Amino acid sequence: MAAITQVVAAVDIGGTRIKAALVDRSFEQVVRVTVPTPGNVAQDIGSVVASVVGRLGDEARAMRAEVEVLGCGVVVPGVVNEPRGVGVLSVNLGWRDLPVRASVSRVLSMPVAVGHDVRAGLLAEARMGAARGAANVVFIPVGTGIAAALMIDARVVSADGWAGELGHVVVHADGPPCGCGGRGCLEAVASAAAVERAYAAATGQYASAGVIAARAHAGEPGAAAVWASAVDALARGIATTVSLTGVELVLLGGGLAESGDLLLIPVRQTVQDLLTLQRRPRVERAALGDRAGCLGAACLAWELL
Amino acid sequence: MAAITQVVAAVDIGGTRIKAALVDRSFEQVVRVTVPTPGNVAQDIGSVVASVVGRLGDEARAMRAEVEVLGCGVVVPGVVNEPRGVGVLSVNLGWRDLPVRASVSRVLSMPVAVGHDVRAGLLAEARMGAARGAANVVFIPVGTGIAAALMIDARVVSADGWAGELGHVVVHADGPPCGCGGRGCLEAVASAAAVERAYAAATGQYASAGVIAARAHAGEPGAAAVWASAVDALARGIATTVSLTGVELVLLGGGLAESGDLLLIPVRQTVQDLLTLQRRPRVERAALGDRAGCLGAACLAWELL
Repeated sequence: MAAITQVVAAVDIGGTRIKAALVDRSFEQVVRVTVPTPGNVAQDIGSVVASVVGRLGDEARAMRAEVEVLGCGVVVPGVVNEPRGVGVLSVNLGWRDLPVRASVSRVLSMPVAVGHDVRAGLLAEARMGAARGAANVVFIPVGTGIAAALMIDARVVSADGWAGELGHVVVHADGPPCGCGGRGCLEAVASAAAVERAYAAATGQYASAGVIAARAHAGEPGAAAVWASAVDALARGIATTVSLTGVELVLLGGGLAESGDLLLIPVRQTVQDLLTLQRRPRVERAALGDRAGCLGAACLAWELL
Repeated sequence: MAAITQVVAAVDIGGTRIKAALVDRSFEQVVRVTVPTPGNVAQDIGSVVASVVGRLGDEARAMRAEVEVLGCGVVVPGVVNEPRGVGVLSVNLGWRDLPVRASVSRVLSMPVAVGHDVRAGLLAEARMGAARGAANVVFIPVGTGIAAALMIDARVVSADGWAGELGHVVVHADGPPCGCGGRGCLEAVASAAAVERAYAAATGQYASAGVIAARAHAGEPGAAAVWASAVDALARGIATTVSLTGVELVLLGGGLAESGDLLLIPVRQTVQDLLTLQRRPRVERAALGDRAGCLGAACLAWELL
């Protein structure tokens, strides 16, 4: 008979998908599951999480993995108050003041930790990814939107869930309108979605941000202008973050970072050009990709136990 | 015979003046002294501090106050690494990697705490000033330059001394050149010195920032334009800080804050106009004025004991 592996259930609830895993003490993902986010998640997040944890158990049995689930970590997007275990606000998922920990604890008889997807992702990058050894880090996933999590003095900071709204830092006072109601927000210029919109407006063609990056690199003028504008805005947002928080390491993640050096090299150069007396940060790609949130949920669960 | 009062010596070393006090456990300043900052402070900070502490003792004797000095807190400007007790960089005072704690400890036979003037000021505002009860605060002294200290999750953050360079956050990409070598930094638009420069350039007259504020309020067009530009830039810097760090309270200090409501009311309004989905902070005047750094030094010394 195989030895029983002690694990936690880690659940990362996103706008379109839920990524989940059973994660052991050495942060190996013993079993992984990805399911679409059901429409009723805001109404009954407890049942949704319980169902995903059940699926993880089924998968483990199917793989003949003998596991004991000691606890559960759930991470959600938006504004999250970790100590209270509450989802304060998620526009994408349609909730306000959702008592995540209470709802999940009602249906799962194990300790439950609740966190924020990006802050938890930074925790995972710090423990097992690209932020190991650093004490002052900003982790910036750039996808449909732009979020950020900050670690300062070796602690991931939250400010009741309100820290890290880098996407809504204004980089051009007269810039394009943003979904938030503002104008010239970083997210409105440099998110993958904004890059795709700007390229479509300039050329009449749809292409993904990754294709636009490649076309810019190949010298297509329309793509090059759009990409340069995104790089400049992102570098300005990073320089502002460095000035205010003194971070020594900038980790870029999300869809836009999949362009690798096409993003990193010009962003690094522009950040260097913008900084004067501030600390010079390293600008690197995050290591854990779209598993960061799920692994971060596992960190939170193991920390709780 | 009077009872002996236990105190700490608190020393705030500024670019032009040293403010010092003997401070008791309830943060009463039993004795105060202000002296010009001597030219040799970077060469022999230990002797400079010892001499100021000696002056405090003389004053106490002159007042027939019976005190026992248990420790010393020293705060300095620039980039300060508190755990190491080192002044990493001060352009004004002309030092780099100055071992403040080691130098002072060599000449004072008592425990010595070293801190950063603005971060220590925030600590004092949190303990006995306008930030009591708040856990997420930015303290912004606006004078010759613009500095900032951040408290997040009830801790004043440092990032090895590099956090808080709000003065060098760019608010207008095409703005005026800044002393740091950059362009459009908040400090180049909204510091008291920048307001005075802009007014002199526009009108050919010198006036202090306080007089310019009053003239703006009285409807003088040149003053009104300069003041509005400073208010707008300061509000943009504050909105950026709120987005990134989620602070719930903004404390304005320094010379510019002496204009009171002439500054606070329009800054509050502009911050409200700029924010969208972020937390709405209170914007208030700091309470401790130019004693904040000295009282902060006392906080650090009492914490150490």
